[in-house]
Amino acid sequence: MFATYDVIIVGAGHAGCEAATAAANMGSKVLLITMNMQTIAQMSCNPAMGGVAKGQIVREIDALGGQSGIISDKSMIQFRMLNRSKGPAMWSPRCQSDRMVFAQEWRNTLEQTPNIDFWQDTVSEVIVKDGRAYGVKTSMGMEISAKAVVLTNGTFLNGKIFIGEKVFGGGRTAERAATGLTQQLISLGFESGRMKTGTPPRIDGRSLNYAVMEEQPGDENPGKFSYLDTRPLDKQRSCWITYTSEDVHEVLREGFEKSPMFTGRIKGLGPRYCPSIEDKINRFADKDRHQIFVEPEGWETVEVYVNGFSTSLPEDVQYKALTKIRGFENAKMFRPGYAVEYDFFPPTQLKLTLETQLVGNLFFAGQINGTTGYEEAASQGLIAGINAHNNVHEKEEFIIKRSEGYIGVLIDDLTTKGTEEPYRMFTSRAEYRTLLRQDNADIRLTERGYKIGLATEERMAKLQQKKEDTARLLQGLKETKVKPEDINSWLEEKGSTPLREKSTLLSLLKRPEIGLDEAQTLLRLTSDLPIQHTEAIEQAVIEIKYEDYLNRERINADKLSRWEGLEIHPSFDYDRLKALSHEGREKLKRQRPGTIGQATRISGVSPSDISVLLVYLGR
Amino acid sequence: MFATYDVIIVGAGHAGCEAATAAANMGSKVLLITMNMQTIAQMSCNPAMGGVAKGQIVREIDALGGQSGIISDKSMIQFRMLNRSKGPAMWSPRCQSDRMVFAQEWRNTLEQTPNIDFWQDTVSEVIVKDGRAYGVKTSMGMEISAKAVVLTNGTFLNGKIFIGEKVFGGGRTAERAATGLTQQLISLGFESGRMKTGTPPRIDGRSLNYAVMEEQPGDENPGKFSYLDTRPLDKQRSCWITYTSEDVHEVLREGFEKSPMFTGRIKGLGPRYCPSIEDKINRFADKDRHQIFVEPEGWETVEVYVNGFSTSLPEDVQYKALTKIRGFENAKMFRPGYAVEYDFFPPTQLKLTLETQLVGNLFFAGQINGTTGYEEAASQGLIAGINAHNNVHEKEEFIIKRSEGYIGVLIDDLTTKGTEEPYRMFTSRAEYRTLLRQDNADIRLTERGYKIGLATEERMAKLQQKKEDTARLLQGLKETKVKPEDINSWLEEKGSTPLREKSTLLSLLKRPEIGLDEAQTLLRLTSDLPIQHTEAIEQAVIEIKYEDYLNRERINADKLSRWEGLEIHPSFDYDRLKALSHEGREKLKRQRPGTIGQATRISGVSPSDISVLLVYLGR
Ligand SMILES: Cc1cc2nc3c(=O)[nH]c(=O)nc-3n(C[C@H](O)[C@H](O)[C@H](O)COP(=O)(O)OP(=O)(O)OC[C@H]3O[C@@H](n4cnc5c(N)ncnc54)[C@H](O)[C@@H]3O)c2cc1C
Ligand SMILES: Cc1cc2nc3c(=O)[nH]c(=O)nc-3n(C[C@H](O)[C@H](O)[C@H](O)COP(=O)(O)OP(=O)(O)OC[C@H]3O[C@@H](n4cnc5c(N)ncnc54)[C@H](O)[C@@H]3O)c2cc1C
Repeated sequence: MFATYDVIIVGAGHAGCEAATAAANMGSKVLLITMNMQTIAQMSCNPAMGGVAKGQIVREIDALGGQSGIISDKSMIQFRMLNRSKGPAMWSPRCQSDRMVFAQEWRNTLEQTPNIDFWQDTVSEVIVKDGRAYGVKTSMGMEISAKAVVLTNGTFLNGKIFIGEKVFGGGRTAERAATGLTQQLISLGFESGRMKTGTPPRIDGRSLNYAVMEEQPGDENPGKFSYLDTRPLDKQRSCWITYTSEDVHEVLREGFEKSPMFTGRIKGLGPRYCPSIEDKINRFADKDRHQIFVEPEGWETVEVYVNGFSTSLPEDVQYKALTKIRGFENAKMFRPGYAVEYDFFPPTQLKLTLETQLVGNLFFAGQINGTTGYEEAASQGLIAGINAHNNVHEKEEFIIKRSEGYIGVLIDDLTTKGTEEPYRMFTSRAEYRTLLRQDNADIRLTERGYKIGLATEERMAKLQQKKEDTARLLQGLKETKVKPEDINSWLEEKGSTPLREKSTLLSLLKRPEIGLDEAQTLLRLTSDLPIQHTEAIEQAVIEIKYEDYLNRERINADKLSRWEGLEIHPSFDYDRLKALSHEGREKLKRQRPGTIGQATRISGVSPSDISVLLVYLGR
Repeated sequence: MFATYDVIIVGAGHAGCEAATAAANMGSKVLLITMNMQTIAQMSCNPAMGGVAKGQIVREIDALGGQSGIISDKSMIQFRMLNRSKGPAMWSPRCQSDRMVFAQEWRNTLEQTPNIDFWQDTVSEVIVKDGRAYGVKTSMGMEISAKAVVLTNGTFLNGKIFIGEKVFGGGRTAERAATGLTQQLISLGFESGRMKTGTPPRIDGRSLNYAVMEEQPGDENPGKFSYLDTRPLDKQRSCWITYTSEDVHEVLREGFEKSPMFTGRIKGLGPRYCPSIEDKINRFADKDRHQIFVEPEGWETVEVYVNGFSTSLPEDVQYKALTKIRGFENAKMFRPGYAVEYDFFPPTQLKLTLETQLVGNLFFAGQINGTTGYEEAASQGLIAGINAHNNVHEKEEFIIKRSEGYIGVLIDDLTTKGTEEPYRMFTSRAEYRTLLRQDNADIRLTERGYKIGLATEERMAKLQQKKEDTARLLQGLKETKVKPEDINSWLEEKGSTPLREKSTLLSLLKRPEIGLDEAQTLLRLTSDLPIQHTEAIEQAVIEIKYEDYLNRERINADKLSRWEGLEIHPSFDYDRLKALSHEGREKLKRQRPGTIGQATRISGVSPSDISVLLVYLGR
């Protein structure tokens, strides 16, 4: 009844969808099996993509030839570049999405990918022979063969939903849990654990009083995620900001004795950085208010998402507390928030390709690896899909280094350090975050995606164009000189010292008070350089402004990757190195890494500690 | 946490959605509770609305001020007027729908209806005090008060899904069943039964060979359902026709021993007129092929619906049989067909308002009443919603008579005769089907919808306009004369006798060979009558062509409704009336109805039998 597939993908969440399209676009025959074809690419929680560090991941997925960026562009209702007031390493694209359109665009994309077949069913077992995966068995009783299997089960494995004192089986509200698979994997020798996550109540937007909230419109000139020609928005929907108060907290506290978390009924650990509102009140008892983002769920719908109010307290407590929030006095709930507890598999059981160490050609990607977030899931799906394809076609492993991308940081962290609580990406997790910017993901990764047959010709051509434009522009900036009389009044207006003699544009662009926006104006005012491409200007300006800094980082990164394998003697005397940080020294002394590479992966050991070590070791 | 509502609607299928919008638009405060807000207005089975007799129902819903017609218009991908070659009483509008757009349009409509609140939850109990409904309890533990409750649970009550020898709990594939409610209703004294229905496998359209199938495009000038200004399609998608064969049947027969139906594991009766393919093979053993309609599921999706191939045989048998169908040689399945068995409540427990006889202010509508089909469900929802509103606001009962609409026939049949098997509408169920046409649903019903505050001013204005246009046109047709030289060549072309002298347009239109299309041409060729409105022309032409016939029917209908209550003596000697049909006499002798009204509702007693009786009784 079924052909033998190259790759079977289990689950059509963010991880599964990226895995399926990656393997298929590279040429594998793919079967995507999911419990319900009506819920492909559901956003289980907030209707948004990107954000700090996460937006960079979406850009990287796009640069490699993945789909999440394109789909986000097609379904967004608002775009904001976060952290614009900080350096470009911190700039992070984020969008609000139309939840339904997002899912539909994914479904269309999957259907239009020639090598993907679909099967609606629940996978209950991986077929394993001689330590290798050969397919799956389903609860409908099918046995389907494949050369590789990618599991992306999300929050569905033995999922349990908690609201106050009530517990339901389920992977998401009103959807069933998936049973059987965990047990089988354990019997094969895998270790599993429990984690939990939560979601806020959904509200009828018609019942809110926006007049007393703070409007948060999208960017004036909205950007987008994909390096391809998707269209930026020409209209947007606003979000709204309001705050909890002591009143709200008091009501919530009344429910604590029925909280599934505080009473110990939920065993799994939740995401520290995306805590429930009860968690926040508990942990930050001194804060008298917390911010709430009121986010529309789509272009048309009146449903809104109450970002910041994730909770599993009893629904009457949720409701009472909600109505104490400014602007929520008459709020009507559509559905209460809840927590979900589910099985995950500690990711230290994986290789950097996301193949399991125990079973050949079996890959895990997404929340099943103990992560949280759509972007984290999608990027793992992409890497697992690529490597499943490569394995099956006897090609090389595809690994992104920590210095090449957040995706590299993510997977390296997971597989080497593991995670105790749902892992979420932060810029602080990346040693080389000035290199891993949202603007240069294509420069970092598109060629790699192209070489493995994933990124298209079109993508490569665009990258070449951008590189050429940037180079030409840089050259021009070095050569073009402006006269004081042409520019001084503008400089003064910007609070920048006037020129006394002709100077190059380059020297002007190095001034800290000339940001990217000013740079664009300056170029328009003073030159006829080829500045069609905003992306090229951005690149050139960043290169100019941060030249020294970036070069230093690049040298560090190169050095590190050259000396990864350099051995450190087990009895090395770290106390001799006065330049080490206190925390770094303690950790190194305790863990005694065998190589520089291992040292870098100890949390608390900073890149500068590594430099100190390398210098001492004579490199 | 909740206000007290006027009306709670349980379930957001076709019945629930119509009920909610009807009650809310009339002014009730409505709460719509459904298990999953993501699956509002799902088409559980075929992606199509309308069809023979069913299309008339959609037009009636629209005429009264319901939504299904408008939503069908907004989401259709193909339109066909079925039975165009027959008389206008048989004309039946039908469309293919984009499944996702249909659901989304309903959701938007519901959200934009001011008086509707939403709550996602499963209702487990109706709160009943002193024989009246006062609200519901849910599985999340809520108690919500209302003055009336409408249950529209569809196929979800103790739903069980069957595929071959496998059984899963569920109301639709991958959705949970609803438990608890049936038991409670039984404890209140309700009688319940089991029914079943089935759905075909879904196929990957990319794997089909359309070249060997017969194309079935939409109508050249596509119509639509709503009397309002929705837009007809300007592009359409085609369906395709192919056939099963002896080969296919043979494979299917191999699976019979594992069939949940033939082995008695499914106890509920299935819809006789929408049988599974195994049923068809079994019951019509002499037929060597059955027609299969291959229907696209939407504008974009590659998923296709295999209409005519509903089955609950084991999935490998389904697959093997499918691949023997012409054009399906390489078919890939997305999901297998299945049967679902569920609880229903024999509708003889209801009043004509759809209120239950046992519990005041408790209404049942849709598949829970033993019907099948979206249109049947939607129309019941509409009537239940109207009457729930009217009850709560102490207004009159709203009942549509058999002579006024198919909706009247449907509800009268259900409540007086009940149903042994899933009830589906047919034109043959209506005594006055020449009066109950798709073209005049507005003339029959819009004023009634307007009077109760459901149909809008706009609708009434359109109706008035149509009536005036028709009247003016009829007058013109009587007065306008055409000369032989102006028309004879055209008449000859159409095979119609040439004129010898000037004649009125009216007389020409009476000719049987001049159909509606010809009438339109004729008008354009010969007159400057005000013919902006196709609808008015249609009306006028039908009135002219079928004048005598329609008048006779109207007289019959009037007579009947006047003599409904006329008593028949229990010992009446039916054998005396030679003009009675054989079947009619037998049934009348057996059942001995007490009134003419009761006599009409005995199946097998025809309208002409009733005429004979009335004449004998002196009316
Ligand atoms: C209630 C809730 C709250 C959340 N809150 C947050 C939050 O606050 N912040 C945050 O960053 N992230 C949050 N998340 C996490 C975010 O939704 C996930 O990180 C992301 O969806 C993971 O993607 P995935 O592809 O790994 O899995 P999912 O999106 O969960 O998709 C899993 C897919 O696999 C299918 N599937 C599962 N088991 C089987 C099987 N055996 N056979 C076939 N198909 C199967 C499912 O049907 C589904 O399609 C939340 C998730 C939930 C459910
Ligand atoms: C597998 C299948 C095959 C079918 N085949 C055919 C066919 O061949 N031909 C045909 O004409 N018709 C067919 N039908 C029937 C058609 O789908 C129904 O007639 C129509 O959908 C009935 O509409 P409804 O509103 O009564 O119920 P449904 O459309 O079933 O909707 C019921 C709604 O109620 C909700 N609900 C149920 N219980 C509760 C509860 N306790 N609390 C809260 N919410 C609840 C559900 O979530 C759902 O939203 C089929 C249906 C199914 C499932």
